[in-house]
Amino acid sequence: MRTLTVDLGERSYPIYIGPDLIKQGLLDRHITDSRALLITNETVGPRYRGQLVTPENVSVTDLVLPDGERYKTLTTCERVYDSLISGRFDRSATIIALGGGVIGDLAGFCAATYQRGINFVQIPTTLLAQVDSSVGGKTGVNHPQGKNMIGAFHQPQAVIADTYLLGTLPERELAAGLAEVVKYGLIRDPEFFSWLERNADKLLAKDADALAHAVAESCRNKAEVVAADEREGGVRALLNLGHTFGHAIETYTNYSAWLHGEAVAVGICMACRVSVELGWLCEADLQRTQRLLAKLGLPQRPPNIPLERFLELMSVDKKSQGGRIRLVLLKGIGDALVTSEFDHGALHRSIETT
Amino acid sequence: MRTLTVDLGERSYPIYIGPDLIKQGLLDRHITDSRALLITNETVGPRYRGQLVTPENVSVTDLVLPDGERYKTLTTCERVYDSLISGRFDRSATIIALGGGVIGDLAGFCAATYQRGINFVQIPTTLLAQVDSSVGGKTGVNHPQGKNMIGAFHQPQAVIADTYLLGTLPERELAAGLAEVVKYGLIRDPEFFSWLERNADKLLAKDADALAHAVAESCRNKAEVVAADEREGGVRALLNLGHTFGHAIETYTNYSAWLHGEAVAVGICMACRVSVELGWLCEADLQRTQRLLAKLGLPQRPPNIPLERFLELMSVDKKSQGGRIRLVLLKGIGDALVTSEFDHGALHRSIETT
Repeated sequence: MRTLTVDLGERSYPIYIGPDLIKQGLLDRHITDSRALLITNETVGPRYRGQLVTPENVSVTDLVLPDGERYKTLTTCERVYDSLISGRFDRSATIIALGGGVIGDLAGFCAATYQRGINFVQIPTTLLAQVDSSVGGKTGVNHPQGKNMIGAFHQPQAVIADTYLLGTLPERELAAGLAEVVKYGLIRDPEFFSWLERNADKLLAKDADALAHAVAESCRNKAEVVAADEREGGVRALLNLGHTFGHAIETYTNYSAWLHGEAVAVGICMACRVSVELGWLCEADLQRTQRLLAKLGLPQRPPNIPLERFLELMSVDKKSQGGRIRLVLLKGIGDALVTSEFDHGALHRSIETT
Repeated sequence: MRTLTVDLGERSYPIYIGPDLIKQGLLDRHITDSRALLITNETVGPRYRGQLVTPENVSVTDLVLPDGERYKTLTTCERVYDSLISGRFDRSATIIALGGGVIGDLAGFCAATYQRGINFVQIPTTLLAQVDSSVGGKTGVNHPQGKNMIGAFHQPQAVIADTYLLGTLPERELAAGLAEVVKYGLIRDPEFFSWLERNADKLLAKDADALAHAVAESCRNKAEVVAADEREGGVRALLNLGHTFGHAIETYTNYSAWLHGEAVAVGICMACRVSVELGWLCEADLQRTQRLLAKLGLPQRPPNIPLERFLELMSVDKKSQGGRIRLVLLKGIGDALVTSEFDHGALHRSIETT
């Protein structure tokens, strides 16, 4: 087991990474009260809930939600609040999230807002959640007109990333998670990017060591960024590479046809294309990125969205300021910046030609 | 104009107190972006919105909500989120709350959770909001089974307490606000309590200087407590004197028959009675408190709620731990403590006899 720390002063917390962690009683260290609400979904719950070792002296109530991004709404939160209140959970209770990014984001938001904040432990079960959404304290739900529009910062007490759980992950979801892994290489870690190029086959074959390394390096990168900028005043925004494009695609397709990571993969390609159009990134680096994403089985072209509509969806993004679209763009592999100061003609051309 | 500061490091903010402040352009100092959403209600909006001076270079959109505690719900929040998203408000926008505690709590919660937190200015229009709910960063909405069960801590950029607005406040609401004013005296400021005894008539006659003094002393007390314990890990819980009883009454009556301050006044009497039953408070101090509340026109007896139901409603309170009711109790005027370590028989007798 590897243990990383997200360094946030008195709100610091560990990320445990390794195989079979859910069987090892790690929750004992992080649940301080006698009550916990475990939130999972209909897919993950039946598969792994029975294997999860919970503290003997803690009474755990299970809440099984439907599976899917379209349930990441305030309406589903009300189900959680109802369970918490009717079960008399008080401020010292803990919410355990056992699931992918949807469960983690939603359970985290409920933990952030129930009685103005209760404890929270993340047990991410998808690669995407292990390398990205479970770390860093961003919680939230979607609004029909925009992804993650309603949310809060709320750091967990611990993240338990059991890489054994990735064994049953469908290929498509594995690939979607790898899009976020590639992102870390692109924005700040060229060595890791090269490692990914060399180990893409192992990752797709679910080689245990390769997966554990990819999760650990991703979490290390994310933990460093979050520790430097918890509330996204600066450098943390780099983690959104590809996301403004990706969110537009997800919103347009009503969060149903595309997995988040797939939309991000397309968004990464589009951000690279804009960077090339601006003369900031060389064509060779764009092609290297495209090749890696293709090797990982990820899409690179958006669905057919009219230019005007695409721009409109992008401008609803949380990063936009005063209606101006801000983007994470690249100057090289491992070298990113956030800016709204770019020739928007390059953006338009990229949307039309990608 | 008096200016107090809530001292919370980089999240410190001013409370401005005095007459006619809404006409003085104080918002200029605290709105940094070009967009603001002003949230008010159908009662306050028509009366004061026209007098509020907003910065010339800021585009202000108004959202007028129905008036009343029963609208302090997630459903009303959705109306706010809809306005923010359809109006393309981004992270640098500001929410201005012009209204009483319901508007302030709800608008504050939306500010806390829209895009994981945007700026927020409180312009409280009732005495209750000026002396209590607008200061300290507690935001939230009610759940059918419990008051303020869903919420977040989110400090405003400024609080503008215009005492001129209290001129149109109905007598009943003025009295309700005074219940919270009396609370500050009881928990930590015996001199202020004596001043209230001497000046009760002036306050009821809406004497401008007396009201301004009462607001300023209340805010000073609250600001000191919040600065010492922002997230209610300790001393801040004293501010809940009377509230566990009061919330039970409000929940039982479905947030409609009783004003919050009225329920708190009853709760204060009940907390005093428990304290006397325990032998912690002398009968004379109970009577002094009852006399002052009576002079201010406040109720002192709860509606007819069966004992078991009353206890059940109290145990849902956010302060309860492991099902055990915690109460703020008194050892004297100006001397309070929070505890669950008391003879519950005294609580039962107090509920049955008050």
